[in-house]
Amino acid sequence: MNATYLSSLSKEDLKRFVDSFDTVLTDCDGVLWVENNAIEGSPEVLKKLRELGKKVFYVTNNSTKDRKDYVSKCLKLNYQATEEEIVSTAYLVANYLKSINFRKKAFLIGSAGFAKELDLAGVKYVGFGPDPMPEGLTTLGSLEGGLESLLEPDVGAVLLGFDPHFSYPKMVKAASYLSDPNCLYIVTNTDERFPVSSRLIYPGTGSMVAAISACAARDPLVVGKPNPYVAEAVSKIHPLDPKRTLMIGDRANSDVLLGANCGFRTLLVLTGVTSLDDVDKWKKSSDPEDKKLIPDFYLNKLGDFLQLL
Amino acid sequence: MNATYLSSLSKEDLKRFVDSFDTVLTDCDGVLWVENNAIEGSPEVLKKLRELGKKVFYVTNNSTKDRKDYVSKCLKLNYQATEEEIVSTAYLVANYLKSINFRKKAFLIGSAGFAKELDLAGVKYVGFGPDPMPEGLTTLGSLEGGLESLLEPDVGAVLLGFDPHFSYPKMVKAASYLSDPNCLYIVTNTDERFPVSSRLIYPGTGSMVAAISACAARDPLVVGKPNPYVAEAVSKIHPLDPKRTLMIGDRANSDVLLGANCGFRTLLVLTGVTSLDDVDKWKKSSDPEDKKLIPDFYLNKLGDFLQLL
Repeated sequence: MNATYLSSLSKEDLKRFVDSFDTVLTDCDGVLWVENNAIEGSPEVLKKLRELGKKVFYVTNNSTKDRKDYVSKCLKLNYQATEEEIVSTAYLVANYLKSINFRKKAFLIGSAGFAKELDLAGVKYVGFGPDPMPEGLTTLGSLEGGLESLLEPDVGAVLLGFDPHFSYPKMVKAASYLSDPNCLYIVTNTDERFPVSSRLIYPGTGSMVAAISACAARDPLVVGKPNPYVAEAVSKIHPLDPKRTLMIGDRANSDVLLGANCGFRTLLVLTGVTSLDDVDKWKKSSDPEDKKLIPDFYLNKLGDFLQLL
Repeated sequence: MNATYLSSLSKEDLKRFVDSFDTVLTDCDGVLWVENNAIEGSPEVLKKLRELGKKVFYVTNNSTKDRKDYVSKCLKLNYQATEEEIVSTAYLVANYLKSINFRKKAFLIGSAGFAKELDLAGVKYVGFGPDPMPEGLTTLGSLEGGLESLLEPDVGAVLLGFDPHFSYPKMVKAASYLSDPNCLYIVTNTDERFPVSSRLIYPGTGSMVAAISACAARDPLVVGKPNPYVAEAVSKIHPLDPKRTLMIGDRANSDVLLGANCGFRTLLVLTGVTSLDDVDKWKKSSDPEDKKLIPDFYLNKLGDFLQLL
């Protein structure tokens, strides 16, 4: 890991690099698109990589869509895609619960795409949708007893993904269910913000996870990047040789760290969350955890790869 | 700090202990009351301490009431109190902003008591009250631009206390205001939960602080315990000799830690958040931060002090 600028490689080294991997795991938000717009040049690079015989998987921590929706979005923005190539966290959670034969109800803090994946996996859930403070229960004294009747019986898991309706009653319920140590606590990812183009900051699932973990005093199972669980899920469909796998991403603490955790080569693109200043900071740090955040290679944008291929 | 059971002291040692302090700082929730009920025996102990000439201050991290409301609550539950003796975090924040001559608007995530303290201090604020996701803006793609128009100009501080209407739009706004490094970030406290008597867990301000700090990637100024700021505020009204000050509380990481940070003697009561199991864990730990959480003395409940006085 030394964060080599990919465009600075000699022709021979570039060819050696491209020949060195046969599988590409690519992040989506901040690499392929920002919200509903493809990042210039990225579709052509993915097309070219496929022509060179590389197997491509879309590995996203975003939990707001189901896999069908992702295929539609990919096709609309000129990315070839099949459902099998989409490795999204809502799908991973649903699939995990199915694999352990989970029969209780889940308490879901998440959006419509997450709910749809649970439906497809046959997992029952409660809690989906808006859940504002009930009228008149706005002081702590008045809360007592007022929310207790709203707890559902037989809840065996709290699931957390991005939820635009995140609210205090959802926090009370999640923390209360989680006070039973047998209740599972599974989150899609811990990304603190979305990479977006506006001057606004859009908090991500990780900010909600921070709140729930604080009040529940528990650490979650994270199925998304940087947890190797996501790579295990891919390897069930397509055997992965870590040494011949390239992870492309815009966020060091999920994408690059996944690479470090799994032994993949990593390529950071600067069209999302992590900046070159961040990388320089980690280079100077003596903390071994910071060192894991340094990518093998970087590019200003994925599109710059095209002329190198 | 060795967590001596106060009831186990000899008569002579007890007398020496009681003579050793002239000022008592006492926490409220979990020490004097749980929600709207006084904890048995606590009012009598406070009365006796005053009769022995001790000066008493109520030092609470709870930000849901203004000082007038606290005086009323004290009197109702048989605790003598004047406004000057109430050191509450909403008051401390308002007073701090006044002391630095803050002239911009604050973005308030907090409850009615907090808003009232700001009114009393002449601090302008926006954001108070319910702020659910606007209709139709429930996917991330649709958020873009949809909330931007809701940002107010001239906001120079984000203030965070307990807010039963905590919501995603509030998180977006707080994180966006805080992306300006000149915007102040001040929170009342970092207690993760309230001490309550039900089987439900009621997340505290600290859980909301965890969410905002994660998405804003900033650490707040904490005016409440365990920050010594709260003791400085008391000392402006009444000079404190740390060696002759006793801090009573139910929560090690706010009350006992404040004592450690300020050089006060500490008495933990087991009617709230921290248990004797927690204390035993810290005794065995080799982490010096854990050692600070061990109180000098403990009692099962404050009321047990009465027969010792």
